[in-house]
Amino acid sequence: MELLKKTVKKISNLNKTLLTKSRKRVDSLIKPVGSLGKLEELAVQLSGIYGTIYPKINKKSIIVMCADHGVHEENIAISPKKFTAIQACNITKGICGVSALAKQARSNVIVVDVGIEKDVDEPKVINKKIKYGTNNMTKGPAMTRKEAIKSLEVGIEIANQQIENGSNLLGTGEMGMGNTTPSTAIISVIGGYSPNEIVGVGANLPIDKLNHKANVIKKAIKINKPDKNDGIDVLAKVGGLEIGGMAGIMLAGAANKVPVVVDGVISTAAAIIACTIEPKTRNYLIPSHISAEKCGKLALELLNFKPILDMSMRLGEGSGAALTFNIIEAATYMNNEMKTFEECNMKY
Amino acid sequence: MELLKKTVKKISNLNKTLLTKSRKRVDSLIKPVGSLGKLEELAVQLSGIYGTIYPKINKKSIIVMCADHGVHEENIAISPKKFTAIQACNITKGICGVSALAKQARSNVIVVDVGIEKDVDEPKVINKKIKYGTNNMTKGPAMTRKEAIKSLEVGIEIANQQIENGSNLLGTGEMGMGNTTPSTAIISVIGGYSPNEIVGVGANLPIDKLNHKANVIKKAIKINKPDKNDGIDVLAKVGGLEIGGMAGIMLAGAANKVPVVVDGVISTAAAIIACTIEPKTRNYLIPSHISAEKCGKLALELLNFKPILDMSMRLGEGSGAALTFNIIEAATYMNNEMKTFEECNMKY
Repeated sequence: MELLKKTVKKISNLNKTLLTKSRKRVDSLIKPVGSLGKLEELAVQLSGIYGTIYPKINKKSIIVMCADHGVHEENIAISPKKFTAIQACNITKGICGVSALAKQARSNVIVVDVGIEKDVDEPKVINKKIKYGTNNMTKGPAMTRKEAIKSLEVGIEIANQQIENGSNLLGTGEMGMGNTTPSTAIISVIGGYSPNEIVGVGANLPIDKLNHKANVIKKAIKINKPDKNDGIDVLAKVGGLEIGGMAGIMLAGAANKVPVVVDGVISTAAAIIACTIEPKTRNYLIPSHISAEKCGKLALELLNFKPILDMSMRLGEGSGAALTFNIIEAATYMNNEMKTFEECNMKY
Repeated sequence: MELLKKTVKKISNLNKTLLTKSRKRVDSLIKPVGSLGKLEELAVQLSGIYGTIYPKINKKSIIVMCADHGVHEENIAISPKKFTAIQACNITKGICGVSALAKQARSNVIVVDVGIEKDVDEPKVINKKIKYGTNNMTKGPAMTRKEAIKSLEVGIEIANQQIENGSNLLGTGEMGMGNTTPSTAIISVIGGYSPNEIVGVGANLPIDKLNHKANVIKKAIKINKPDKNDGIDVLAKVGGLEIGGMAGIMLAGAANKVPVVVDGVISTAAAIIACTIEPKTRNYLIPSHISAEKCGKLALELLNFKPILDMSMRLGEGSGAALTFNIIEAATYMNNEMKTFEECNMKY
């Protein structure tokens, strides 16, 4: 609890002076004002985060939080639970989606077991297991409040390590069979939506099972009565250990003035938890893509996120975050390489 | 004319066997089927172009075609005409938008003078000048049919050189003050839209001048009566030399089985010309972003393009193409780095 408290306390607003200075410089570059759109917004945000008009990305890390879900036994996913452990290992071998995309983006990938159902026999998967998967949330809380806090602190701890090692751009990813179910529950509770409105197929659940999935989420919310104003309560009752881990990464990024890239629906649910715990976290988050999962658009809107990529992706793992790393880096190249009209003696 | 004829004749459909093989492999990778969305579509398209299920990007080039427009004197742009020459030189100095983004994407940038209004005193700008800017299209054709063909052939020649030098991914860019006006004219004619419906502000034209800009386009179309089924006729009468140059790059890419990335509205207008000349060119084109220029979305839809980036950009120069290079490369990493369920002995 101490680490979480300390971290949240450190989260501040962006550097206003730098935001203004950066916007002024971006507007004076040799291009029509505003013509680089969201790339300009990114550059200004990065200036406000790093405290310089010449932001630079030194080292990138995608942290993949892995955990299982008790609610998986309610048949809300077609992928077997054992895939969580197998894929966690496969990511470290460089053969999964996020591994491939991170390699192209010249990013590290860190894989963390924050609650896989069984022991993982792969030393490259960092063991931070809190428990062997959450409890079935249709029968009671997914985890205790203490466990939820611990999941946040695992994320903080791992992110802090990456930042100490020189990473100044973090991406969030996850692996956890069935985890669109708790994510949709979080978005339902905090966004005030009915699960029926927003439930999606996740990893190819047959459409005729969608109603069942929505009912499972409704049951979990009904039995647990999470308090929508208390992010930790929502996380504990209808969330997941990897979702807590990702929310922790976001809090740690914000506390250390390091931007954190949000991935798809599960990562966005984590962002909603992090911003419910401390709304100023939002300043340090960068959205990536609009997920093809049904609640993707709504979830982004809850945080007023305008995604950069429109790729119809719904893999998770941090794949969208990896793809977005290049765009964020490109924004820093705009700042560092382009000259202003004045510097070029150009006049309209 | 010979070079154009020869090039168009070489353009074929994609390799169907490889399209099928690549789709099969992409579907068998260790991820839910379809979950990498447009990245999968890209990978399959690249397989069909290159003829392998393991496509690789060896060398990337963005070719920036630069030219001026007689119609500029009708006050359809606020940027002075002289900026075309200045910015063409600035791109070679590495200080423009496309220079910065291409550097991040590890791409060459080639700048070509295909019709700037004056002689350019910078050896890095390749001199392929056809004339000192087009004629004012409100008073007659922007150029002769022969000049239009020559502009296409300049594009073909430069693209062929880049391909001979090892580039297997090309991007199209342009510089030409006022060139959203001919681009909108092309989209109006071939798409069957009224200029009033689709006219946009280009490089920050004041909104109260939009009606005037639409009237200029209408006048040009009325006086020239371009034949919408004859791409060369549309290009000559209401197009531009840099638009012809870009269309030529696309034809050459298609003829040599090299993908060509389309940038914003002007580049899309060039793609519409290229695909009117030879519809099979479409197979080799990759859209990049949805431009913030008003007709951006419509222009993409004319070619059934689904853009990857949603950045509210409207700079041109090839900036959107440069940003998309990384995504295209990421698609090849998906093919080359990821393993299949079978290769991993994983079973549902």
